[in-house]
Amino acid sequence: MGARHLATLSTTFQPFDRVPHNQQAGGRREEEECTSSRLLTSYGVVRAAGPGTFTLLPLGLRAMDKLVSMIDRELAAAGCQRLAMPHLTPASLWRRSGRLEAMGKELVRLRDRQDRELVVAPTHEEAVAAMVAAVPVITPAALPLRLYQVGAKFRDEMRPKFGLIRACEFTMKDLYTFDTGRAAAEQTYREVAAAYRRIFSRLGVPYTVVEGDGGSMGGVSSHEIHFPAGIGQDTLLLCTGCSAGYNLELGESMVECRECGGGLRESRGIEVAHSFLLGTRYSEPFKAMYRSDEGKILPLYMGCYGIGVSRVLAAATEVLSSPSELRWPVAIAPYPVVLLEPKQGSREEAAAGREVRELASRLDAAWAGEVMLDDRGKLTVGKKLREARKTGYPYIVVAGRGCLEEVPRLEVHCLQSGEVLHLTSEEVLGCIAGVKQRLESS
Amino acid sequence: MGARHLATLSTTFQPFDRVPHNQQAGGRREEEECTSSRLLTSYGVVRAAGPGTFTLLPLGLRAMDKLVSMIDRELAAAGCQRLAMPHLTPASLWRRSGRLEAMGKELVRLRDRQDRELVVAPTHEEAVAAMVAAVPVITPAALPLRLYQVGAKFRDEMRPKFGLIRACEFTMKDLYTFDTGRAAAEQTYREVAAAYRRIFSRLGVPYTVVEGDGGSMGGVSSHEIHFPAGIGQDTLLLCTGCSAGYNLELGESMVECRECGGGLRESRGIEVAHSFLLGTRYSEPFKAMYRSDEGKILPLYMGCYGIGVSRVLAAATEVLSSPSELRWPVAIAPYPVVLLEPKQGSREEAAAGREVRELASRLDAAWAGEVMLDDRGKLTVGKKLREARKTGYPYIVVAGRGCLEEVPRLEVHCLQSGEVLHLTSEEVLGCIAGVKQRLESS
Repeated sequence: MGARHLATLSTTFQPFDRVPHNQQAGGRREEEECTSSRLLTSYGVVRAAGPGTFTLLPLGLRAMDKLVSMIDRELAAAGCQRLAMPHLTPASLWRRSGRLEAMGKELVRLRDRQDRELVVAPTHEEAVAAMVAAVPVITPAALPLRLYQVGAKFRDEMRPKFGLIRACEFTMKDLYTFDTGRAAAEQTYREVAAAYRRIFSRLGVPYTVVEGDGGSMGGVSSHEIHFPAGIGQDTLLLCTGCSAGYNLELGESMVECRECGGGLRESRGIEVAHSFLLGTRYSEPFKAMYRSDEGKILPLYMGCYGIGVSRVLAAATEVLSSPSELRWPVAIAPYPVVLLEPKQGSREEAAAGREVRELASRLDAAWAGEVMLDDRGKLTVGKKLREARKTGYPYIVVAGRGCLEEVPRLEVHCLQSGEVLHLTSEEVLGCIAGVKQRLESS
Repeated sequence: MGARHLATLSTTFQPFDRVPHNQQAGGRREEEECTSSRLLTSYGVVRAAGPGTFTLLPLGLRAMDKLVSMIDRELAAAGCQRLAMPHLTPASLWRRSGRLEAMGKELVRLRDRQDRELVVAPTHEEAVAAMVAAVPVITPAALPLRLYQVGAKFRDEMRPKFGLIRACEFTMKDLYTFDTGRAAAEQTYREVAAAYRRIFSRLGVPYTVVEGDGGSMGGVSSHEIHFPAGIGQDTLLLCTGCSAGYNLELGESMVECRECGGGLRESRGIEVAHSFLLGTRYSEPFKAMYRSDEGKILPLYMGCYGIGVSRVLAAATEVLSSPSELRWPVAIAPYPVVLLEPKQGSREEAAAGREVRELASRLDAAWAGEVMLDDRGKLTVGKKLREARKTGYPYIVVAGRGCLEEVPRLEVHCLQSGEVLHLTSEEVLGCIAGVKQRLESS
C-alpha cells in the first residue's frame, strides 16, 4: 500500500499571482470579476483556462471532492444511486423533447465525422429517460428509482462571468427520479428536499429556499436554494413574516406572501440548487414506462434535482471571504489546518524546530491527510501567516515567538471566530481534535 | 451523518437484458462486439448511450471508482498532484502545437456562439503547458512538478468498437511531468513506471510492458502496458528469452530482441497505459519555462503518462471472463461479496432466515459497504446463484440446503479458484475477513 504522506506546501502546486488579477495582460474586465473569482485565481486555487472555462488546481479539487463526498453521503442515505452518463448526447434526443430549438444557442453543439449532430450536454433529462425506457420491464417494486451523477456540464453562455459562478463548463450533481405518479413523486420530492437541507446545513453557509419557476426544465413544481449575495443574478422576494420566499421570475406581480400574507422584501441570491417535478414531460415522448400491478403500461412520473457543485464552491467563498482573504466553510476547506514552521536558521527553529515537526506528524496522525505543513524554510513565519490567511485555512497553527518562552506555546489563529489562542503542543492537539469531532458530528 | 446502509439487490439499478445484446433491435454488428462489451451490457453494468458512448451504471461506476482510488494512492505516493482541467480547450492551443492539423478528424471540434473554435479535448499536453507557462516563476526547488487528472476524453473514432475498449468518450488518467532536463525527467520516468507496475500488479490481470512509438504525442522515449487478448488492436513482438517486448509499429523490421538477441513471437494486446518523454516539444512553443539557479530561463522537460481507466475496466473483464459470465479482478469488483438469502416461504428461510440477515450485517460491519445482499424474496437461491455468477461477484455466499443440516452451513463459491466451501456463519466471517486482509495488504 502507498504510504500516507503529510502534505507540505513546498510540494504543493499553488501558484500565487504576483500581479493583481484584473491588471494582467489578457485579464478580465472588472465587471466580469467578483471577490471569489479574483481571490481563487490569485491565490492558486483555480485558474482561468479559456473563455468561461477553469482548471481546478489541487487545492480547489480537494475542496470540490469534499463537497461531492458530502452530497454522496446524503443522497445515498436518501436511496439515490450514482451512475455516469456520457457528456456527448445525440441531438436526436433533444429534437424529440423539443429542446434542441427551445434551448437555442445555449446548447453546445457539434457534428462528428459521420455528420451526426451531437450536443455536449448541459443536463440529462432526455438521456436518462431514454436509458430508463430501454430497461425491459419496470415494476412498482423497483420504484422509486433515484439516479444521479456528478460531472461536467456545458452551456454556451453569452457572457460568462464571476469565474465558476457563471461558467461555460461547470460541475453539476444532477439527480433524476422516477415514480408511479404524482403522490409518490411528491414523497420523493420531500425526501430529496430534506437531503438538500442536510447538505447545506452541514456546509454552514446561510441559504434561502424559494419557490422558483420551472424554466426550460418544464417543471410543474419547483424550489431553488440561494446563497444571499450582492452579486447574485436572481432577485428574490423574501417574506418579512415567515420563511417563505419566491424567485422574482415567478412572483413578479406578487404583493404579499402567499403563506402568511406578510410583506415581501427584495434580496439578491446566487442559485446553487434546484428541484423540479417534471411529471411525464420526458417519460411520455421517450416512453419511459412501468407496468402497474394491474398489468397496465404507464408513463413514469419524473423529477429532477440539481446542485451546482463548482458554483457552490465559488459562491461559498464569495459569501464568506473578505476583499483580500479567502474564507472557506470548514467542511470543504482544502485543508482545515496548516502548521507554520519557523524560518530556517531562526531562533524559533533552534528552540522548537524538532518539536514542531513532531507536532505536525501527530496532528496528521490525528486527522489523517487533513493537515498541511508550511515547510518552506526560506520564508519568515510572518510571511507564511499572511499567505495562510489569504488561502483561508480555518485553523492556522503558528510556531512564532511563543516557542521561545519557558513553557513554549504556539499560536492558533481561528479565522472563523477571529480568536488567537496561545497553546502548548498538547493543547493544540486537543483543540484540533475538537474541531475534527465537531465537524464529523455535524 | 448519513447512516451506512447494507447494499441490497432489490434496490440496485442493474437492468439485465432479456434478449441477447446482439439480437436486439438497433443492436451492434457482431464484429463490433466482444465478450466484455456483451456481458457488461447484458448484465446491467454498462449501457450503450449513443455512437461510441456509454453510461456507467451503478455497479460499473463503483468498479471505476475503485480503480481510480488505486491509481490516486500510488500516484500520490510518487509525488503526483491531482487537478482538473476543462474538457473544452481553445483550438488556438492546438494550432500552436501543430496538432490541430496533425490529429485531423479524430479531434472533436466545435464553434461557440462567438464563433470561437474549440476542441473537446482528447488529451491535455497543450492545455497543461499553457497553464504552467502562466505561472510567474518556477525555480528548480519547485521541480519535479507532476500534475495529473482523471476525467473524460473525446476521440472522434471512425469505427468505435468493443464497447469501452474503443469508445468515442472514455475516461483517462493523464499525468504531465515537468523537470529541469533529460536526466531529471528520466528519474521521473522511472518513478512513474514503478507506480504503474504497482497499480497493475495490485489489479492482478497479467500484463506486458513493451517499447512503443510516440505516435501523435511526439515522444522521444515511450513504453506501453498491454493486457494480452485476442481482440487486441496492437500486435506485440515479445522476446522468447527475456521480458523485453516491442509494439510492432516500432519494430516492424526487427528480427531479434535488442536486449538479449532472443527470438520474437507475435502476440495481440490491448494497450491500457503508456508513457512518453516529450522533451521540450510542448514547453518550447508554449514557453513553459523555469529559472535555473544561474538565473537562466530554460524550457521545462516534459513527460506524459496515461492510463485508460474505462478501458482497463473493460479489458480486465475481457481477459478474465468466460463467454457467458463476467469475472472481475477482486480489487475492483463492484462488490467483492454477495450473500444470497433463501427464497421467501422456503424451508431454508424458516430454518435460517434470521441467521442469514444477521450474518449480512456482521459481514457488512466487517467490510463496510463492500457486501451486497440479494434480498429479492421471490427468487429461488438457484436463480440468484446463476445471476450472481453472471455478475461475477468474486465471493458468493449461498444460504442453500446446508442451512437445514444439524450444524447449518453456507456455501461459499470462490469464483477465482472455482472452489466451493461449506462453512458455518463464523467460518464465513473468518473467510471473508481473510479476503479483505489479503486485498488490503497486496
